[in-house]
Amino acid sequence: MDARVSALQKQAAARADMVNLSGGLPADELMPKEELGRALAYVATRRDEALQYGWPEGTCQLRSWIASRLAARGAHIDPERVIITAGAQQALSIAASVLVANGTAVIETGAATYPGALDAFRGAGARVVSRRARAAAGTNAARVRYVTAGVEMPSGIAVECGDALAGDEPLIIDEAYAELRFDARVPRPLIADAPDRVWHVGTISKTIAPGLRVGWLIPPAADHDTSLEVKSAADLHTASICQAALSRLVATLDYEALVGRARRAYAERAERMIHALRRHASELTFDEPAGGFSIWVETGEQRDEEAFLEAALEAGVMVDPGSLFRPDGGGQLAFRLSYSNAPVDQIDEGIRRLANVVRGSAARPQAARARCS
Amino acid sequence: MDARVSALQKQAAARADMVNLSGGLPADELMPKEELGRALAYVATRRDEALQYGWPEGTCQLRSWIASRLAARGAHIDPERVIITAGAQQALSIAASVLVANGTAVIETGAATYPGALDAFRGAGARVVSRRARAAAGTNAARVRYVTAGVEMPSGIAVECGDALAGDEPLIIDEAYAELRFDARVPRPLIADAPDRVWHVGTISKTIAPGLRVGWLIPPAADHDTSLEVKSAADLHTASICQAALSRLVATLDYEALVGRARRAYAERAERMIHALRRHASELTFDEPAGGFSIWVETGEQRDEEAFLEAALEAGVMVDPGSLFRPDGGGQLAFRLSYSNAPVDQIDEGIRRLANVVRGSAARPQAARARCS
Repeated sequence: MDARVSALQKQAAARADMVNLSGGLPADELMPKEELGRALAYVATRRDEALQYGWPEGTCQLRSWIASRLAARGAHIDPERVIITAGAQQALSIAASVLVANGTAVIETGAATYPGALDAFRGAGARVVSRRARAAAGTNAARVRYVTAGVEMPSGIAVECGDALAGDEPLIIDEAYAELRFDARVPRPLIADAPDRVWHVGTISKTIAPGLRVGWLIPPAADHDTSLEVKSAADLHTASICQAALSRLVATLDYEALVGRARRAYAERAERMIHALRRHASELTFDEPAGGFSIWVETGEQRDEEAFLEAALEAGVMVDPGSLFRPDGGGQLAFRLSYSNAPVDQIDEGIRRLANVVRGSAARPQAARARCS
Repeated sequence: MDARVSALQKQAAARADMVNLSGGLPADELMPKEELGRALAYVATRRDEALQYGWPEGTCQLRSWIASRLAARGAHIDPERVIITAGAQQALSIAASVLVANGTAVIETGAATYPGALDAFRGAGARVVSRRARAAAGTNAARVRYVTAGVEMPSGIAVECGDALAGDEPLIIDEAYAELRFDARVPRPLIADAPDRVWHVGTISKTIAPGLRVGWLIPPAADHDTSLEVKSAADLHTASICQAALSRLVATLDYEALVGRARRAYAERAERMIHALRRHASELTFDEPAGGFSIWVETGEQRDEEAFLEAALEAGVMVDPGSLFRPDGGGQLAFRLSYSNAPVDQIDEGIRRLANVVRGSAARPQAARARCS
C-alpha cells in the first residue's frame, strides 16, 4: 500500500492544521542554512569543478574527510575505498545490487526496519525477511544481514552491533543514525573489525541536510570496482555542487558542536513525545528511544491500517503506518511517530489527536487536495 | 578496458601541459556561475524545502517548467508525468530497468553512441547491439531503440528522428543535445507523436551545469508508477537544493539567450577543430558536426587502442578511445575529440600533437600521478 499511503500523505501535507509526525525528517531549524548558503555560493562562483562533471567515486576532499572521521573512531580506511553516493539510500541500493549479483538471495533485517532499505533490497532482486522469520523457516540460502548502527530504526532503541561479528555472512552496516545517540556514545565502526565483509553506509542527511543527497558506501575491497561501476551506470556521480559545498562547510564549521546540538534537541523532543504518550495514551506500550528520530508503537490490535491512517489524517495528525517498516508484512496495527521535525509545541496536541483515533473517537474535519499544475 | 582508460586519464589530467580533448564536458566559462551562486544561496537560506527530504518525483515547480518548455515545442505533457532524475544518466538507467523488467532483452543503438547509455542498459541486464549488427543477425528478441535527438552522439551529425516512428517498438529518446544544433533548429519532441512508446529523457547538464545532476524522465503513462518506484529505491529523490536552485535560476535568467550563446560558442570551437584537423591531419576523415560537443574520427586502421591512448597522453593530448562508444566492440581505431571544454587557443596544438601520434612520430614527456590522500 505504499503508493496509497504516499497519496494520502501528500494530500494531507497541504493542510495547515495538520500535526505532522510522519517522515522521519531532521528538524528544519537545526540545519546550518546560513553556513550552507555561503558555502554553496562560494564554490559555485569560485570552483569550476563544483558545477562540472566529476569522477564516479566523488571528490578526494570529501572522501578524505569521511576517512578521517572514521579513523577518529578506530577504523583506518584508505580514502580510495570510499564511494560518495546520493545519500545512504543509494549506498544501500548499490550494495544490494552487487551482493545479489554475487549470489546473495536473502537479506535479513529487524522485524521493523527502514522502509528505504526494503525498497532498495527488493529492487535489487533480494528477498527480505526478518531474522525472526528466517530463523523460524530455517532456510540456508546465501544471506546478508542489514544492521543499523547505534540505534535501531524506527524504534530508536540502543543497538549493540558486536553480536553481528559472530557470524561470517556479509553485513550491511547503516550508520545513518550512529552519531545521534542521546548519550553521545558513538559506536566503534564495525568495518574496523570485519573489513572483508562489512558494507559500510553513511550519510550527512540526519546531521547537516538531506536535501544535499550526500552519503557514502565503503564496500569490501574485493567489491570496490564493481560497486563503482554500478554507481557510474546509475547517475555518473553525486552532484559536484553538493560535494564541494559540503567539503567547504565542514572545513569552516564545528561539526562536533552541530551534532551535539542535534542530540540535545532530539532528546528533548523525544522526551516531550514520551510525556505526551503517557498523558494521552497510557494504554499504548513502546520502548523509550535512546537516539534517532522516532518512536515505534505496536498497538497489539488487529485493525485495518489504511482506515486507521485515514482516520488519523481526518483527525489532523499524520503518522507512518507500520506495514511500511515490516519485511514480513501483516501483523497487528503499528505506527512510527517522528518527533524529529514536529514543532515542539505541537507534539502534545498531535499525540492527543492520535490517542482519540486509537480509541476510535476522533472528530472529523475537511479534506484538501495537492496537485502539481 | 574502461577502468584502465579511466586510470590513465585520471593520471594524465593532473599534468599542466595536457591538452584535454576528452570528456565531452560543457565549457566552464559558459555556465551561469554568478546567477547559480545567488540562486543556491537564496534557496538554502530562505526555502526550508531546499535542504529537506522531498517526494521521489521532484518538485512541482521544476516539473512544470519542463512541461512548459515541451509544450512550446509541440508536446503537451501533464507535469504529473515528469520524474526529476539525477541527470539524464539516471533517467536512462531507470528506463532500462523498467523495460528489462517488462521483458525487453535487446536495446538497439547507433554503431557508436553515448558510453553512459551502454553502461546503464547493460547494468539493467539488457543486451546492447547496433542497429546494423541486429539487422545482420536478424534476431526477433523483444527490443527497444535508443536515439539521441537533434544530433548523434559522439559524431554530432544531424539526426532526423522521424523514421523511428515507423516501427512499433519502445523508443528511448535522449534529448541531452537536442537544443544544441548550431543552426538553432530544435526538433519537435517525438513524445508528442508517440506518447505511448517514447521514454523521454532530458537534462540541463549541457546548457546550465552538469554538477547539479538534474535531468528528467517521462515514461509512457502505463510505466509511470513503476518508474517512480525504481527512482525512489535508487536514491529517494534528486537533490532538493539543486531542484530549488534551478527553478529559481530559470525564473530569473533568460534561458533562451543562454542556449543561444552556447550554440555560437560550440559552433566556433567545432570550426576551429575542423580547421586544425584539415591542417595537421588531412589523412583523417570525419563528418562535420551539426551540433553537440565533439567530432568522431575513424582512422580506418587496426591499431592497439590502449597503446594509442598511452602514446597520445605521452604526447600531451587526451582523447576518448573509440571502443568506449561501440556497442558491438572491436573495429578499427577510432576516437572522440571534444572541442566543447578545450581552451580555444589550445585546440590547434592539441590536434597537432594528435596528428603526430596517429602518424607514430610523437615526442615523449614525463609521467605524473594523481591519488586521493
